[in-house]
Amino acid sequence: MAQFFNSRETVVVDAIDGFLRGAGGRLARLDGYPHIKVVFRADWDKSKVALVSGGGSGHEPAHAGFVGQGMLTAAVCGDVFASPSVDAVLAAILTVTGKAGCLLIVKNYTGDRLNFGLAAERARAFGLNVNMVIVDDDIALPDLPQARGVAGTLFVHKVAGALAEAGQDLDAVTAAAQQVVGSVISIGMSLGTCTIPGSPREERIKPGHAELGLGIHGEAGVEQVVYTDAKSAMAMVVERLSRSLRPGPHVALLNNLGSTTPLEMSTLAEQLARSAIADQIKWVVGPAAMMTSLDMHGFSLSLMPATKEFESALLAPAAPFAWPRLEAFGKVEVYPLPDGLSPIQPMPAAHPARRELLRKCCEILIAQEAALNALDARAGDGDTGTTLATAARALISALDRLPLADLTQLYRAVGMELSQTMGGSSGVLLAIFFTAAGDASASGKDWIGSLTAGLNRIRQVGGAEPGDRTMIDALVPALEALPNGVTAAAKAARKGADFTGTIKRAKAGRASYISEEQLQNVNDPGAEAVALLFENLSSGAGARHAAE
Amino acid sequence: MAQFFNSRETVVVDAIDGFLRGAGGRLARLDGYPHIKVVFRADWDKSKVALVSGGGSGHEPAHAGFVGQGMLTAAVCGDVFASPSVDAVLAAILTVTGKAGCLLIVKNYTGDRLNFGLAAERARAFGLNVNMVIVDDDIALPDLPQARGVAGTLFVHKVAGALAEAGQDLDAVTAAAQQVVGSVISIGMSLGTCTIPGSPREERIKPGHAELGLGIHGEAGVEQVVYTDAKSAMAMVVERLSRSLRPGPHVALLNNLGSTTPLEMSTLAEQLARSAIADQIKWVVGPAAMMTSLDMHGFSLSLMPATKEFESALLAPAAPFAWPRLEAFGKVEVYPLPDGLSPIQPMPAAHPARRELLRKCCEILIAQEAALNALDARAGDGDTGTTLATAARALISALDRLPLADLTQLYRAVGMELSQTMGGSSGVLLAIFFTAAGDASASGKDWIGSLTAGLNRIRQVGGAEPGDRTMIDALVPALEALPNGVTAAAKAARKGADFTGTIKRAKAGRASYISEEQLQNVNDPGAEAVALLFENLSSGAGARHAAE
Repeated sequence: MAQFFNSRETVVVDAIDGFLRGAGGRLARLDGYPHIKVVFRADWDKSKVALVSGGGSGHEPAHAGFVGQGMLTAAVCGDVFASPSVDAVLAAILTVTGKAGCLLIVKNYTGDRLNFGLAAERARAFGLNVNMVIVDDDIALPDLPQARGVAGTLFVHKVAGALAEAGQDLDAVTAAAQQVVGSVISIGMSLGTCTIPGSPREERIKPGHAELGLGIHGEAGVEQVVYTDAKSAMAMVVERLSRSLRPGPHVALLNNLGSTTPLEMSTLAEQLARSAIADQIKWVVGPAAMMTSLDMHGFSLSLMPATKEFESALLAPAAPFAWPRLEAFGKVEVYPLPDGLSPIQPMPAAHPARRELLRKCCEILIAQEAALNALDARAGDGDTGTTLATAARALISALDRLPLADLTQLYRAVGMELSQTMGGSSGVLLAIFFTAAGDASASGKDWIGSLTAGLNRIRQVGGAEPGDRTMIDALVPALEALPNGVTAAAKAARKGADFTGTIKRAKAGRASYISEEQLQNVNDPGAEAVALLFENLSSGAGARHAAE
Repeated sequence: MAQFFNSRETVVVDAIDGFLRGAGGRLARLDGYPHIKVVFRADWDKSKVALVSGGGSGHEPAHAGFVGQGMLTAAVCGDVFASPSVDAVLAAILTVTGKAGCLLIVKNYTGDRLNFGLAAERARAFGLNVNMVIVDDDIALPDLPQARGVAGTLFVHKVAGALAEAGQDLDAVTAAAQQVVGSVISIGMSLGTCTIPGSPREERIKPGHAELGLGIHGEAGVEQVVYTDAKSAMAMVVERLSRSLRPGPHVALLNNLGSTTPLEMSTLAEQLARSAIADQIKWVVGPAAMMTSLDMHGFSLSLMPATKEFESALLAPAAPFAWPRLEAFGKVEVYPLPDGLSPIQPMPAAHPARRELLRKCCEILIAQEAALNALDARAGDGDTGTTLATAARALISALDRLPLADLTQLYRAVGMELSQTMGGSSGVLLAIFFTAAGDASASGKDWIGSLTAGLNRIRQVGGAEPGDRTMIDALVPALEALPNGVTAAAKAARKGADFTGTIKRAKAGRASYISEEQLQNVNDPGAEAVALLFENLSSGAGARHAAE
């Protein structure tokens, strides 16, 4: 499976350097690639307790992403899913530890414990004051005393980070970290495994199943469970956690294990809010990717008691962008819809001449239904005639309730009728045309000026210009000629419509997907409709008079 | 393909509500589910220009994730990859627009243009001042005048958001937004398609290929290119962008299209820093998921000129967590390794009795190599004897350079030798044991007290307690009995080692993976080694005297 790497050997160092490029100069790394991969605060003055964490890579943003004021001082990065060496950890400790000492925050894996442990011993031999806490928040394996460290580690980083930043001493920071370790519980669920760089992906999860109680290194979950939906998934996770849950309010940390989409993560947050333990969730961190397992399609949920001390430490500012902040986990604020969505029906007002003109326009379009459909069938989907005729029939049946006597209101009402009865893009465009015309009329434009304003608006919104093989090609010349009478407009519209038959490439609308040969000598049906409308009006009488 | 949804019909509304649960009360939504899905600022007082954006869902965090002070005022969410309705857009406009007016920021898709366009008309009919800009930053299709709107839209949100927040009027905000639209260019590349909720996933990309110039709705890219690695991928993207790139410094926005891992995104950032246009990249936003295409395994790169005006607008504070901040795109700060990684070799110092004792211990372990291997073969991988014998042989050959006369330095030196010559967990644990003993000796503990301190440290780091079937089971009683002489220690160690043969389940170390039956009456080889060591010493003479 292809991935955006250069080679298995350079993936971690390339990624660390890429990460540092955008860290705004607040972070640096030690020399010593490829064996020593240590990211640390460039602004660190050793005046406070240093916090060092790390472990295998593949869990990004953990741990380098959490280095920064208020959280970690340094992160020691191993290769993908492999513990960093003793030398690497020692290099980190020696680099960041001053008189205030250093706390190592280590996830409970043998390699990490041993390598961080020996590095701590060697640092102590230099007279440095080094403590270590081991995070074992995973409750997936209740019988094993050696629980794994997973996303709950973030709580340790944040609480210890806040206390260290506040100037507390090593013992106080260690005690608080230990208190977090003792009270955080986590469990994960996944719909797929992860892709280890350079290795083929193994899908061991049966179709229709999920793994519950999985670690963050691609190891198999405690069990495969039947997967139905997000609701049952969250219910299973919550059920396992409730076995170890303390009473009282908690902070939830909802972690994306890799490739779960934001839509899914937010859906899971919603399920948590409707779950059996919802009443106990006072705060939330995330949903966000914090402790990932490469591209695993899964999530984990961690819970920690919301004590006053933990709350204030979690709420303290922290520089790392990857920390999503602590937010109250609450109800959804729902506001009523604004007035105006159901527009007030205009008062019907008679104007016989305009009524007659409108009816005539509609009848012209109805009469051309078959011809326009046939034309459209050669360049599009063959429905232009029917679309226009359907709208025309609806408009005729609405004549009695239209505000015919008030041109501004009439334009708007026609726009509203068209938006409700005419499907597709053309319905919306004509609705915009008439609504904008009404707007222009309200601001004092005459009837041709108003229609021209409507035309300009659909040029902006629809993005079509003259020459793009749309109804614009007939409408623009028609409106320009209209001050000289309907006959002049009809001639101009016809010329414009026929011009569309010579345009080799459509630039907008459905015809833009059709080949040049197919379009040859076929007028655009929208432009043709405009031409036919004016031509038929011109053969009648009194058009201009009636419209005024 | 299973996903964390409940149903195709509820996925967007569930996700919006889940998102709002954790928005800290700063966001609200309108009533009107499922048709009207509008997220807006709960703290909005209409005193400034309102910014409304939106479009189909499936691009999260866009657009609801960018609602907040300094960016959008409201987001109108359609169904997955489907434009929201005119009514939904109108509801948003009516809800947030005051006298200062409203700017609609619309990505260039026909549905969005028309629905936002008609909603704008209808809002204008209420006397509201509404402008609209259409974002068309995608350069993938250079011949089409209707370029798509993709991740460059974020620049419009941020620049317009900063200006609106600063109190600029609608025309100024619109002009700035239009200026951004006119200068942003983007292109995307992907190694896979996306999974539309409720639909089967279609993989149209040939193995070993990537799609270049793809949109954000799962539509096919402009071309399939041969994919080799991250370097060539970024080179292709950069080459396309450079065709339209203006001179001078730029801001890069590196967007995760969905399921690309942070390791990969950071690798791509590094490739950008080494690319042909690296000199023109002054700032970076991301890498982060900003405008996604569900779970697409791809990325996009957007570039905007870093003018003074744009810079200050992009640097202005913004509330939405999804906005990753503008950061200087710079070089990697590399610090030299600290002193202390290559420990100073202690001065050799003779102490014949201690030399003799140490040599004897080593010879005992060498003599037991085969027996301990055989024991280990029944519960582990059969190498305990060889591991210990190898270390013992190395220690014998180091006797002449050990600081035998200084017990503190001797413990530390033995720990260092073991960490360098002894593989596996046991090597690290014994190194911790002796290093910690040296530490305790330095602080004034006697030799037994120092060894006990070492023991306590490996109990903490290794996590093994008495009864866990490890060498701890022999070492703890042996050290407790040692004040009474080596013979007493030997007896205690033997009792402890034999006890391990009765422990049915190992709780730590490799034997924890072995079944109970296989472990029956098999002593732990580490514990057995401790017992054999003390037993053989006890049959010798002067052990206590020599050690002191």
